[in-house]
Amino acid sequence: MTELTHLDAQGNAHMVDVGGKAVTSRVAIAAAEIRMNADTLALIAGRGHKKGDVLAVARIAGIQAAKKCSDLIPLCHPLMLTSVSVDFELDNALNRVLITGRCALDGKTGVEMEALTAVSVAALTIYDMCKAVDKDMVIGDICLSEKKGGKSDDYKRKAE
Amino acid sequence: MTELTHLDAQGNAHMVDVGGKAVTSRVAIAAAEIRMNADTLALIAGRGHKKGDVLAVARIAGIQAAKKCSDLIPLCHPLMLTSVSVDFELDNALNRVLITGRCALDGKTGVEMEALTAVSVAALTIYDMCKAVDKDMVIGDICLSEKKGGKSDDYKRKAE
Amino acid sequence: MTELTHLDAQGNAHMVDVGGKAVTSRVAIAAAEIRMNADTLALIAGRGHKKGDVLAVARIAGIQAAKKCSDLIPLCHPLMLTSVSVDFELDNALNRVLITGRCALDGKTGVEMEALTAVSVAALTIYDMCKAVDKDMVIGDICLSEKKGGKSDDYKRKAE
Amino acid sequence: MTELTHLDAQGNAHMVDVGGKAVTSRVAIAAAEIRMNADTLALIAGRGHKKGDVLAVARIAGIQAAKKCSDLIPLCHPLMLTSVSVDFELDNALNRVLITGRCALDGKTGVEMEALTAVSVAALTIYDMCKAVDKDMVIGDICLSEKKGGKSDDYKRKAE
Amino acid sequence: MTELTHLDAQGNAHMVDVGGKAVTSRVAIAAAEIRMNADTLALIAGRGHKKGDVLAVARIAGIQAAKKCSDLIPLCHPLMLTSVSVDFELDNALNRVLITGRCALDGKTGVEMEALTAVSVAALTIYDMCKAVDKDMVIGDICLSEKKGGKSDDYKRKAE
Amino acid sequence: MTELTHLDAQGNAHMVDVGGKAVTSRVAIAAAEIRMNADTLALIAGRGHKKGDVLAVARIAGIQAAKKCSDLIPLCHPLMLTSVSVDFELDNALNRVLITGRCALDGKTGVEMEALTAVSVAALTIYDMCKAVDKDMVIGDICLSEKKGGKSDDYKRKAE
Repeated sequence: MTELTHLDAQGNAHMVDVGGKAVTSRVAIAAAEIRMNADTLALIAGRGHKKGDVLAVARIAGIQAAKKCSDLIPLCHPLMLTSVSVDFELDNALNRVLITGRCALDGKTGVEMEALTAVSVAALTIYDMCKAVDKDMVIGDICLSEKKGGKSDDYKRKAE
Repeated sequence: MTELTHLDAQGNAHMVDVGGKAVTSRVAIAAAEIRMNADTLALIAGRGHKKGDVLAVARIAGIQAAKKCSDLIPLCHPLMLTSVSVDFELDNALNRVLITGRCALDGKTGVEMEALTAVSVAALTIYDMCKAVDKDMVIGDICLSEKKGGKSDDYKRKAE
Repeated sequence: MTELTHLDAQGNAHMVDVGGKAVTSRVAIAAAEIRMNADTLALIAGRGHKKGDVLAVARIAGIQAAKKCSDLIPLCHPLMLTSVSVDFELDNALNRVLITGRCALDGKTGVEMEALTAVSVAALTIYDMCKAVDKDMVIGDICLSEKKGGKSDDYKRKAE
Repeated sequence: MTELTHLDAQGNAHMVDVGGKAVTSRVAIAAAEIRMNADTLALIAGRGHKKGDVLAVARIAGIQAAKKCSDLIPLCHPLMLTSVSVDFELDNALNRVLITGRCALDGKTGVEMEALTAVSVAALTIYDMCKAVDKDMVIGDICLSEKKGGKSDDYKRKAE
Repeated sequence: MTELTHLDAQGNAHMVDVGGKAVTSRVAIAAAEIRMNADTLALIAGRGHKKGDVLAVARIAGIQAAKKCSDLIPLCHPLMLTSVSVDFELDNALNRVLITGRCALDGKTGVEMEALTAVSVAALTIYDMCKAVDKDMVIGDICLSEKKGGKSDDYKRKAE
Repeated sequence: MTELTHLDAQGNAHMVDVGGKAVTSRVAIAAAEIRMNADTLALIAGRGHKKGDVLAVARIAGIQAAKKCSDLIPLCHPLMLTSVSVDFELDNALNRVLITGRCALDGKTGVEMEALTAVSVAALTIYDMCKAVDKDMVIGDICLSEKKGGKSDDYKRKAE
């Protein structure tokens, strides 16, 4: 059976040694969604007179979370991200916000955890800002969409 | 239309004033799942000779993340959590790990974001530790299960 | 000569003991400004076709910084802020953005440092977002406007 | 009209991609002042028998704040600063402390925000340590003095 | 056999629930030492012309570390410390610096970990500042000296 | 007399400039011990029916603390560690847990503080998890065992 790289021969956790790996340009894209009531989505869209800040706040939260990734995920390496962006799409048909996060790095290890952390925290922030009107929201489909750079083959998620 | 409490009359974000609220005993329980290949689940379960640390690491990551919630979610209040626990159940039928997080506080505001953050970061940590063997894992069904305490009625998620 | 409370009898720094102080409702309001070129202010105001995010980002940065105050200022006490807000006024006459920060707490010590930190970091964030077009911006007039609660008399800054 | 680099074509905030930029040796110097009563300045100077720790504490706070810059300013890149120093000059003529911060890096992006953050937090720390005797202190003239390295021309602030 | 409170019935780690405990005034005092060459101790003492900042820096590091305790020690509760102090004694007879840390809180749980963290990080900071001249330094005797408040009996370390 | 590198010519603290140093592969190994009652050690070893999480939690705490080193130790440089591991040995003869921490980096400065911080925080975490049954535990012998890479000669601690 394949072994988990984050556990040593005794099953103990350690931060994998990436010292010997080459510095390459790496990119990862992650996705998430948050499903909600139609009324909640309308509030986020700001269909009233006032354009609200919900997505602006969630975007910043996601970007900052990408930078905190190695503090949140115990075995992640500290990284110097060269780029982070978080984008949103309002899906009125399915009453959800689609979230995309993209991180880039010139370094020795991939940035998929940073991208996944960005979309997760962006989704949590939307939940926080809307929970007073809708506690039933569900965050889901957090997954890696794409990954480039590094020694392993590039990854692209298969359409379901 | 109901207003979002985190936006003021101009649509600007602010941290809601909880100064006038009573200190009560509050509890929140959140849930999440991470779906994966059967082989990946077997590695987590440690069905080989060695009992691995994956869930122990994820549990600690989740507990610590609950404490970082106000640093991650921009409009969350800093809180003095009195209790945090994160538990896992391996669901071999559906090839997933079910995650439950419970936070408690004697304070002026609810702890649902802390519980949701705990399960989200625990799930991300499982992803991190298993991604070398399975990049297709999906984190989902992050939701609030239950909430007690405070002025608003207690909340219990309806079974779907 | 009056002594500095943050230094003990030997001149060594310590965190002042507030254990014996009463829990009261406290508020502090701080102000700052950032002066810039007229063109830079126009970009912030979004007088073109697109409404930009500069002030939304600076507002979030200020709110989050208030929560980090005890981590930034070595002798500040950790606090559970009950409310934080940061507001902006564009002053086209003097080509500056005026920043106001307000923090509240039910606690044993004042929140003036939290309010001052909020406006300072909001101003630094505006600098960051505009520095590509204007490196000559100056942040100034960071001061405490008002302070209420606690044993000492309420404070209100005299008009100059 | 020139565009703000931190906003994309839709006016949304993002962390600018510096992946393609060259690693060069970069330096930035920032300045700030804090104005106060003559008596307060005398306490800082330690003109009594005891040499106090005010400036030592403020220096450490400034150095540590430079390292926290990417956590404070949402769109700043995480950086591996190679050098940080913070210095003070007591100006008895104008009753103020002049603060200078210098940061250096071998990297892909400038360190002006790190230097500006260092002097701002050093000034806030002086305010904190002296506020019991002087709430009227004003922090001002926070600006970039000089910047070297990187593709854009070196910057040196013009004397006013 | 007595059970460890931080492990539940399944041996899993959790943050102990202190929700039902009374808020009382609590104090903890911890100690540590760092042993070094006589020459290193002389440099710290500043027996030359210049009084150095080593102990001032270590004091601040220790105070700030006490505030970070719940971020460092996974199962510690976040606390609102009301007082932290760190003191040093130079022991020329045994070529060591003795470090004492004292933390206080009005809360539901003890502050011994905060005091122990303060002296540990103060010692590490002295090591850092002197390591260029003395890599053989040893940090030791980190222990709880005294603890007051809370339901359990007060603790005072027996002289050895 | 040799000068302390972290103090400038005026005795003021600063972060040493490593900008001119070469990027080399660096490793540091540190050690610590925590002494306790035989019963406490037995609880950690899990000699009963249940295998507890004490060392798993302490290991994660140590690894995460290595990454926080530059935030804890004021004059440490931020670093991108390429590897961190923390290991434990139960010494039943002397009733203690021996802790070893190893950090690696491709960078401009050594990682001895990161390794020392890892073992210190791992020891503090063991103390925290066992303090309910044994407050007399003592953490000691925190020292640098070995250091490789960089311009200065490699270091190996002499056996006592």
